[in-house]
Amino acid sequence: MGRLTARSPVTRIAIVDDEVTVRRRADTLAVEEPLEIRVAGTPLTVTMRTPGHDVELAAGFLVSEGVIGAGGDFLSAIHCGGPGTGGGAPGSLLTMDSPGSLSLSKGHAGRFDRLSDPESAAPPASVLSSGNTYNVLDVTLRPGLEPLLTDIARNFYTTSSCGVCGAASIEAIEKTSRFDVAADAVTVDAAMLLGLPDRLREGQAVFEKTGGLHAAALFDAASGELLVLREDVGRHNAVDKVIGWAALDDRLPLSGTVLQVSGRASFELVQKAVMAGIPILSAVSAPSSLAVELAAASGVTLAGFVRGSSMNVYARPERVLV
Amino acid sequence: MGRLTARSPVTRIAIVDDEVTVRRRADTLAVEEPLEIRVAGTPLTVTMRTPGHDVELAAGFLVSEGVIGAGGDFLSAIHCGGPGTGGGAPGSLLTMDSPGSLSLSKGHAGRFDRLSDPESAAPPASVLSSGNTYNVLDVTLRPGLEPLLTDIARNFYTTSSCGVCGAASIEAIEKTSRFDVAADAVTVDAAMLLGLPDRLREGQAVFEKTGGLHAAALFDAASGELLVLREDVGRHNAVDKVIGWAALDDRLPLSGTVLQVSGRASFELVQKAVMAGIPILSAVSAPSSLAVELAAASGVTLAGFVRGSSMNVYARPERVLV
Repeated sequence: MGRLTARSPVTRIAIVDDEVTVRRRADTLAVEEPLEIRVAGTPLTVTMRTPGHDVELAAGFLVSEGVIGAGGDFLSAIHCGGPGTGGGAPGSLLTMDSPGSLSLSKGHAGRFDRLSDPESAAPPASVLSSGNTYNVLDVTLRPGLEPLLTDIARNFYTTSSCGVCGAASIEAIEKTSRFDVAADAVTVDAAMLLGLPDRLREGQAVFEKTGGLHAAALFDAASGELLVLREDVGRHNAVDKVIGWAALDDRLPLSGTVLQVSGRASFELVQKAVMAGIPILSAVSAPSSLAVELAAASGVTLAGFVRGSSMNVYARPERVLV
Repeated sequence: MGRLTARSPVTRIAIVDDEVTVRRRADTLAVEEPLEIRVAGTPLTVTMRTPGHDVELAAGFLVSEGVIGAGGDFLSAIHCGGPGTGGGAPGSLLTMDSPGSLSLSKGHAGRFDRLSDPESAAPPASVLSSGNTYNVLDVTLRPGLEPLLTDIARNFYTTSSCGVCGAASIEAIEKTSRFDVAADAVTVDAAMLLGLPDRLREGQAVFEKTGGLHAAALFDAASGELLVLREDVGRHNAVDKVIGWAALDDRLPLSGTVLQVSGRASFELVQKAVMAGIPILSAVSAPSSLAVELAAASGVTLAGFVRGSSMNVYARPERVLV
């Protein structure tokens, strides 16, 4: 329902020099709620996410999984009621006026204006009272794209060459990727890159209140301009929201950009960068072995431990200019 | 294959007072590889994990999902080859002597001794040369348990009452849980609880090398004794390994224990605590709204921001004695 934070009573216990203080007060929490993403009425995945920017999240997820490659592949999305509300049956596309649904369609500039900021995601009271949870989003894709949805998870991790293994996972992504990040002639200034974690933190409105959200932000590699920043309880969701924002704004592939993430860099985050054509991924913490292998194989510049005055570059370091 | 760390070349760039240093050196990374968990030959899930303690991971996952409730439900597990190796076809339980497989069965004390430490997870050279990736684990359960596996993900997030929403997720776990954590009469000393994050960090052998692993550890709430500690690139996997260790050691429900985790407390981690009968969950960072709601509804004591001299207790604070 677009709530990014919730209030909860908390008992705070402090022990300093054997002096015990116990206080009861209200605390602000990051909201976590399930979102079921459907395509043409067929449930595809359920993710635990922070509500808001759900259309971006769905679009970014579909880009990351190789289902869509451009904003034009994504026709519309509606929030529909769950099984108990009478809405949301497969294929029953509801309109804005129907109780139990919230229709979302592209605005004048081809953007999904309705969810462009968290506040605007709050549904009208008349819809709320229908019992809609705003946790089911049904996406309509360009005709002909649906068949790609079969068995997404397994496509990514299994090939006939070696079963389930890291090499097969990398191979699957190389086969699925629509963009050539390796060929991106982008460069980035090392000093600018070192400053991105601070700028990410400055942009994290909700983190300041809750200490509980991951963030991802896209920057222009040449100018350092912040293009978009998204927060979520799940790091992969924050990245999907960023990529979905770009897809719906017809910005794919994201050549010449840097994706800065809080926390660590996993295989999954590098996968998302590759699928969206992002040539540079920068993480505050450590990458995993498979994240480095995928970055090296696909031509993504991967920086880790980007903190204060230093960083480690694990793949394609020649793009970082000193 | 039991590798917890891998070496990778890295370019380290430091900028101090406009003085730029660039060094090429070797860095140690946390290993990430996919694991496919099968039950009776049927693929159930693929998770990106740090190899080692795979049998515990599978057992803990099955406990967390409500499929098994005791060590006796879990009969055996084998690492089998993927589709390309000729091994691992559904139902083809291979033995230790067969190329492409590694059979794991309970030792003298009913424990899975073979994987009791990371080093011991390394397969013999003769098996390695067969091309087995050690990324497919096939589990055999007590007869009659298999039918519960149908559509695991949806069971947890959807009920007829409100569709996909946090309340439904909580309700589903309350219905599935085998143990009554709310009734656990455990108490824990506040000062002891405050010390657990440091003890978790001290026990993290791999984190020290890589900075890249989550950890989960189980402590006895009365004595503070460390029972088990596991590390993984995925926080949920580290918790599943801890719970799986306990299940295979016939320790469920985990009454009178504290689960200490690195990082944040999500809905999923509280779910795992509930399903294993763990009455106290302590996190170094923030909990989400749904984590707090589930903890309150199910009777788990949930502590967050447990750092240095203070902590926040979000649910069942009366168990924390000051």
